[in-house]
Amino acid sequence: MTTDPKHLKRMKAIKEKQDQKIAAADQERGVTILLAGPGKGKSSSSFGMLARSLGHGHKVAVVQFLKGAMSTGEEMFFSQQDNVDWYAMGDGFTWETQNKEQDIASAKRAWAKAEALLADDRYQLVILDEITYMFKFNYLELQPTLDALKNRPEKMNVILTGRGPKQELIDAVDTYSHILDEKHAFKAGVKAQPGIEW
Amino acid sequence: MTTDPKHLKRMKAIKEKQDQKIAAADQERGVTILLAGPGKGKSSSSFGMLARSLGHGHKVAVVQFLKGAMSTGEEMFFSQQDNVDWYAMGDGFTWETQNKEQDIASAKRAWAKAEALLADDRYQLVILDEITYMFKFNYLELQPTLDALKNRPEKMNVILTGRGPKQELIDAVDTYSHILDEKHAFKAGVKAQPGIEW
Repeated sequence: MTTDPKHLKRMKAIKEKQDQKIAAADQERGVTILLAGPGKGKSSSSFGMLARSLGHGHKVAVVQFLKGAMSTGEEMFFSQQDNVDWYAMGDGFTWETQNKEQDIASAKRAWAKAEALLADDRYQLVILDEITYMFKFNYLELQPTLDALKNRPEKMNVILTGRGPKQELIDAVDTYSHILDEKHAFKAGVKAQPGIEW
Repeated sequence: MTTDPKHLKRMKAIKEKQDQKIAAADQERGVTILLAGPGKGKSSSSFGMLARSLGHGHKVAVVQFLKGAMSTGEEMFFSQQDNVDWYAMGDGFTWETQNKEQDIASAKRAWAKAEALLADDRYQLVILDEITYMFKFNYLELQPTLDALKNRPEKMNVILTGRGPKQELIDAVDTYSHILDEKHAFKAGVKAQPGIEW
């Protein structure tokens, strides 16, 4: 099959640049990823990478710092899969519990679990879902998380999600996506949909 | 258990506002979601919602407009699950194929599949992964997609991903997250990791 010579020339040039970029990225190690911002797609993106990771036969773990009071689609689905350890250890939103002491105790329990997972080299992926709120509300100190990320097994990938991340956390991670909320169905009056929001 | 009265007062006020927002969102229907922008988390977020949806017992379908030439973690994992129909119908990046005619033919085949799925009320979620590139490269017309979204079954959720979405598509969807690439491990020299990038 032939193709437009201009297109071919342009594509060859792009391919050359892409190949150079790929050759330059030669470090083989696990990465830390922060997904933050007001837009939809933070936790869901982490769960998509979890599925990807399972596709490669990895062992994975999830600690949810807010969710826990109510079953979610993600928990119902993934907790049935092989190679997944799922810990939904939150009590719900702070305005639902209305109890700061209880929220702090839950945060500490969840962190103890997370800290153990981050030191366990059987896991290729650990997700700390909505952990940033714990730092934002001063329910947890940031430093132990920074230390655990730094000292984790070399091949381990870690994903952290939630709004309002502290600058020190942004500085510490390899990849940071900030998700803008340009438009949201909920604000336009559509009820939160199962399978989409939870 | 008691709690700090200031905290309690603040939380009660937040809860009241939240409850008002929840009550105001009373439309029960499927939503359309666009995940775009240069940052990491577009396709992965759609796959996370797919997992959520499976957790609720939904039937789902995915059409991948770029991926197809090579197996990915997401395909290996989800194509083994019940209630998932997975169509990886792309030939790879345009600079890999270097063949515009072939790319256009693949785009048209993928769209024919997508159009049939968008009219099929057995599916509660349809993902059109990286479809925005097809419009950006002028491989597909946008209007048939806008029409299919508008005329889809009422309860169907649809997620569209990719960079550089056209304004008419942004205008048409219910939810739009724009994902900024604040930092990326690949640019810092880390090889694309299985389970994270594919």
